[in-house]
Amino acid sequence: MVINHRMPRNEEGIATVAGVLKQQFGDRFQTGDAIREQHGHTTTWLENQWPDAVVFAQNKNEIAAIVKVCATHKVPVIPFGTGTSLEGHVNAPAGGICVDVMQMDKILAVYPDDLSCVVQPGVTREQLNTHLRDQGLFFPIDPGANASLGGMAATSASGTNAVRYGTMKDNVMAVEVVMADGRIIRTAQRAKKSSAGYDLTRLMVGSEGTLGLFSEITLKLQGIPEAISSARCTFPSVDAACQAVMQVIQYGIPVARIELLDALQVKACNAYSKLDLPEEPLLLLEFHGSDAGVIEQAEMFGSIAADHGGGGYASTTSTEERNKLWQARHDAYWATLQLRPGAMGISTDVCVPISRLAECVSHVQKRLKTDGFISPIVGHVGDGNFHCLLLVDMENKDEVARAAAFVSWLNDLAISMDGTCTGEHGIGQGKMPYLERELGAATVDAMIAIKRALDPDGIMNPGKVVRG
Amino acid sequence: MVINHRMPRNEEGIATVAGVLKQQFGDRFQTGDAIREQHGHTTTWLENQWPDAVVFAQNKNEIAAIVKVCATHKVPVIPFGTGTSLEGHVNAPAGGICVDVMQMDKILAVYPDDLSCVVQPGVTREQLNTHLRDQGLFFPIDPGANASLGGMAATSASGTNAVRYGTMKDNVMAVEVVMADGRIIRTAQRAKKSSAGYDLTRLMVGSEGTLGLFSEITLKLQGIPEAISSARCTFPSVDAACQAVMQVIQYGIPVARIELLDALQVKACNAYSKLDLPEEPLLLLEFHGSDAGVIEQAEMFGSIAADHGGGGYASTTSTEERNKLWQARHDAYWATLQLRPGAMGISTDVCVPISRLAECVSHVQKRLKTDGFISPIVGHVGDGNFHCLLLVDMENKDEVARAAAFVSWLNDLAISMDGTCTGEHGIGQGKMPYLERELGAATVDAMIAIKRALDPDGIMNPGKVVRG
Repeated sequence: MVINHRMPRNEEGIATVAGVLKQQFGDRFQTGDAIREQHGHTTTWLENQWPDAVVFAQNKNEIAAIVKVCATHKVPVIPFGTGTSLEGHVNAPAGGICVDVMQMDKILAVYPDDLSCVVQPGVTREQLNTHLRDQGLFFPIDPGANASLGGMAATSASGTNAVRYGTMKDNVMAVEVVMADGRIIRTAQRAKKSSAGYDLTRLMVGSEGTLGLFSEITLKLQGIPEAISSARCTFPSVDAACQAVMQVIQYGIPVARIELLDALQVKACNAYSKLDLPEEPLLLLEFHGSDAGVIEQAEMFGSIAADHGGGGYASTTSTEERNKLWQARHDAYWATLQLRPGAMGISTDVCVPISRLAECVSHVQKRLKTDGFISPIVGHVGDGNFHCLLLVDMENKDEVARAAAFVSWLNDLAISMDGTCTGEHGIGQGKMPYLERELGAATVDAMIAIKRALDPDGIMNPGKVVRG
Repeated sequence: MVINHRMPRNEEGIATVAGVLKQQFGDRFQTGDAIREQHGHTTTWLENQWPDAVVFAQNKNEIAAIVKVCATHKVPVIPFGTGTSLEGHVNAPAGGICVDVMQMDKILAVYPDDLSCVVQPGVTREQLNTHLRDQGLFFPIDPGANASLGGMAATSASGTNAVRYGTMKDNVMAVEVVMADGRIIRTAQRAKKSSAGYDLTRLMVGSEGTLGLFSEITLKLQGIPEAISSARCTFPSVDAACQAVMQVIQYGIPVARIELLDALQVKACNAYSKLDLPEEPLLLLEFHGSDAGVIEQAEMFGSIAADHGGGGYASTTSTEERNKLWQARHDAYWATLQLRPGAMGISTDVCVPISRLAECVSHVQKRLKTDGFISPIVGHVGDGNFHCLLLVDMENKDEVARAAAFVSWLNDLAISMDGTCTGEHGIGQGKMPYLERELGAATVDAMIAIKRALDPDGIMNPGKVVRG
């Protein structure tokens, strides 16, 4: 494990708070090892840091009550959804109380006329989409995992559909937040746009639980398109594929998804998902629109692909074929793990301006080869965002150190290309050293000033994003 | 004039700062009455509150130097662009130094491959679009006035194109900001998306100069569409027009513009722009897309319009006809003023969920009639945002009081419908009383905490948005 920062514990405060909450929550207050281990667990190589207790909250007033007790005794509060974050977001470096919101799973309202809805933070995206389907609506953000919407808002998640529909920042209209003093605020009304004061909605989205805990989330919805088609195309090189993507974006083709898989990733997917795709760089696309619109988009893409040496171009409106292909894309993580059984998969998350994408990926492939890592690359390339999944033997200290050096090098490379160390996973614990390199000390100081203003005792998910 | 709040002046500090800046800026430091009057002027009924001096800054280091001197002596700093804001944003209720950024009018970089550019704050939107045209690109936000991009970012402007392209919040990728201590921060790199720390970009956009002064702005651009067409359609009632709009949005027709003019507004436009439109509620639309796409969109709209009693439907791809119609829409403000020469036009700016739009407009029309006001209604109805332009005789105290009562009633009505008192004009001085009614005391307290954290001496555009 990579050892991360520990923070001083307030033992007396923690003991007092535990006593109060046990009294109040009974069976919904848990301190067993298994529960604590699970709630400190993240899909990452960061050391697991358990909370002292887990409380299962059922409504906003309960969250507020927990935060108030913790505020009185200066004890950390860590929110928890599905535990699928990747940068140690739910670790408890100073101990404290984990608030599990997964029992807050009610869809409170759907407004089909306004294309919006209000949900509790424990609703998952698949649950929401199942609920919406009969009304012809869907929520487009798809980070892969069936994450909670609270967690997705907290990390500003995005994923395969972001190229068309944006990220959580673009799709959260308002949040209700329990602040560090236990007060509940609502950041906006339900109008489609507003210039009323500071944009607290977008400040809270992506704040990773360090400024407050979400108790309700108002989301933008989309109508299910009349037609959906998908396409795939193989390219002679990652560079050629990236050039094609750049042209798609410049032409304004409203692709709903445009995903890159490098040759190694295709190989892994073939093996895992029993496909027979040519083991060369591949673009997978999805088009949303009218019947005529998706045909037009697919044709335009086909012609761009041909200009860049694309081959084996195939598009389909068959739901079955489409689902098979996208399921393989979604299973890329599991497919990759099969390439080296027993190894841990460490995901990077850089995002660069699209004009630098081909160059960035090419540098990365070269270095991966030199370093001797097995690491497929998948990318939400329409946004300039791609992930390496480094397969690391965590028992081999030298290899772990080399992997850490690679991650550091890659983050710096992206930053040097006017990009970011994190397109969608967030800072958490794992990327704290890079935030200042990316944005500068004065910018981080402004973030710290905001953190201290809204959370003067530093109890909200401490040790994440910025030091409090 | 409506008398607004005055704040205590720091006479000694102002005198000291004036001495220092005069020395440093020579002719670019001005204290003449005409200049000061012009820089306190806003298109509104709020009392004009002059700054003590105006400095014409030419680069970011000059802005930083001005802010540093003002910070040392605790003197207000007020940014100024084109002076087209509507809620007293550039007034100086405590005096101080106005920083005119209109000499910072350089387009610093255009990245056609990335669909982005970097501009200084004094670049106007028309200047930018003229510059971009040869590269097949445009910046879509169009608030009507040829405002500076700094001002548009400061108020989170939007306008007719927002229904498709979003507001400034969606189109500013990063800002460089001179903070209250004179330090310069950059809020983000140029990647299309990022989860790196708190979203300071969106916090700064819409902060109306109260948290910092913009020195550079990175903007998202769009490719000029292959085809543009426009359409107009008359409806038997505002309600029928609103129902049609709602269906357009629900069907996901990607209209670029969908504007409502009520019968009185059409009448005013006919007279001013020499048109002969039927004097009934009118929807004006614009479609962007491929040749086939815009035809498909226009047909879909035509069929929806027919279902709601729409008549006189006409669509065109002729640039000349389109420009004539949209010029008339842009001149609606001047056309309205002709309805009652000598009166002042007072613009409201509520925005409600689209499902409440018809009801809201209908209440408003009823009350306008009861109150006896001449006030056309125009609306960016695809967003649920509409403006009344009340024509008020400012010499008539009773009428002014009744107009103020109307505005207050309307803001409260929108708030009661889960809407906002300001869709795009901002809070400024004029809407400060409504912010708390809209979002609650705890939310405004969070805004104040952020204001105090980033501007502890309250020197950045004081007396706007929230008390410091």
